[in-house]
Amino acid sequence: MHTTPLFSSSSRRRIEEVHPDFRKHRMDEVTVEEPLEIRLLPSQAPEAVPLAVTMRTPGHDYELAAGFLWTEGILENPAQIHRIYYCRNPREPQYFNIVQVALQQDVAMDWKRFTRHFYQTSSCGICGKASLEAIRVRGVAPVKRTFQISPSVIRSLPEALRREQTAFDRTGGLHAAAWFDCEGSLLALREDVGRHNAVDKLLGSLFLSGAPLHDGILMVSGRASFEIMQKAAVAGVAMVAAVSAPSSLACDLAREFGITLIGFMRKDRFNIYTGGERVEEER
Amino acid sequence: MHTTPLFSSSSRRRIEEVHPDFRKHRMDEVTVEEPLEIRLLPSQAPEAVPLAVTMRTPGHDYELAAGFLWTEGILENPAQIHRIYYCRNPREPQYFNIVQVALQQDVAMDWKRFTRHFYQTSSCGICGKASLEAIRVRGVAPVKRTFQISPSVIRSLPEALRREQTAFDRTGGLHAAAWFDCEGSLLALREDVGRHNAVDKLLGSLFLSGAPLHDGILMVSGRASFEIMQKAAVAGVAMVAAVSAPSSLACDLAREFGITLIGFMRKDRFNIYTGGERVEEER
Repeated sequence: MHTTPLFSSSSRRRIEEVHPDFRKHRMDEVTVEEPLEIRLLPSQAPEAVPLAVTMRTPGHDYELAAGFLWTEGILENPAQIHRIYYCRNPREPQYFNIVQVALQQDVAMDWKRFTRHFYQTSSCGICGKASLEAIRVRGVAPVKRTFQISPSVIRSLPEALRREQTAFDRTGGLHAAAWFDCEGSLLALREDVGRHNAVDKLLGSLFLSGAPLHDGILMVSGRASFEIMQKAAVAGVAMVAAVSAPSSLACDLAREFGITLIGFMRKDRFNIYTGGERVEEER
Repeated sequence: MHTTPLFSSSSRRRIEEVHPDFRKHRMDEVTVEEPLEIRLLPSQAPEAVPLAVTMRTPGHDYELAAGFLWTEGILENPAQIHRIYYCRNPREPQYFNIVQVALQQDVAMDWKRFTRHFYQTSSCGICGKASLEAIRVRGVAPVKRTFQISPSVIRSLPEALRREQTAFDRTGGLHAAAWFDCEGSLLALREDVGRHNAVDKLLGSLFLSGAPLHDGILMVSGRASFEIMQKAAVAGVAMVAAVSAPSSLACDLAREFGITLIGFMRKDRFNIYTGGERVEEER
């Protein structure tokens, strides 16, 4: 029997809201981010071929799969589709995170073309499941760093970031990632049209320097997603601050790897999603 | 001889600024977006292996490649790198869009692991070069639709979009894509943590309905990038409106495929980046 999934686009998390004169715990809603694997099942094939994994908000998944296959040039019209369904293989652990698109008998596929095509994709939005496991397999341990940052330093970061975003001033279209020390001095900043690229450029500069990573804060100009936290975890970063909201998976990954996650940074307040012990109590 | 590239993160475009009582042409700066292919060259291998293509803003490309290889778990320390350089193969047309990372002799690679890994990536940021060609190969023709939209309808879109973004209200973390008719009525809206997913869900719903695409406007809540315009072009969409700024490649693709591109939508004004003939003169 096919159970209809009940999707929610938001998920509740216990957060700490930090104001200049008080801190309070409350429940907050964050956007749900989960991996969706899209598989194609040709009528003659013994099993489905995994085509792509995207980090998405659950819901309208059949439309997502169909839209992806159409706009990536794999399907031309809906009559090519026999049916679309969630994978119901009991050996698959993520029931509602795998969508299979079964094709009609007469649909010919040039498999070679899009093996090549999907081999060449971006660094953005790696499969959550596969990558969460991959991080563990590669032995990335939770971060143990025990430094503390003053709330006033954290409040100063967005303005410090903004001041240095020279390219953003001209175009209004660039993401930034910056590395701050524990006193709030900006040590390095990179900008890019892709936020994962901005983080890769910043962490790449630290990597190439060969020096061990010291205590500090990775700040991003936008939202904190799974991929940002994954990169932070591999790099051993202990604190990530995002101007905007984090996703559910960003919160989960931060907790799992002992990373302090700050978000929703406003002039007078910010939220701590996890790891509040690295934020000093106001004196 | 190795020429040092002169990168700019912004590029000038001639735009039309539309106000309620006047329109003016002026030059504007947009963020540069171009594909970067990252290749790995093991010391024993006859040629480099293309690993990933990401849509990026040129500059700091060696750091981007190193940061990507580090945070994706492929390299562990900088000593594994022999050297990083732009591909100087004269048969390669995109001189500064291919970075090769040559490894030291003793670096062992588990190729199978990351063939699998990169096979499973997201729908985001497909290689510009490959996809630009792929679109042509698949015979996507420039859009011929000749409808016109009133500027007051265009000015009404951001508020109409915002009103329907119910999940955004709760979390502040979702992108939206919506389909409007020529009178500015919202016909469908999808939200997702990934903006390309929001567009795939929206276009997928139109695709699955089987009805031919009618005249209308694809609106996105954020920026217009290459991938959004690529999807619009394949779907035959004639007008794309983005609340924020478009990238250089989005402008180029819009021009190439005859798509009207609107951006930087403010309360009283918006910019036309290309295809202004579909925007009525104010009466």
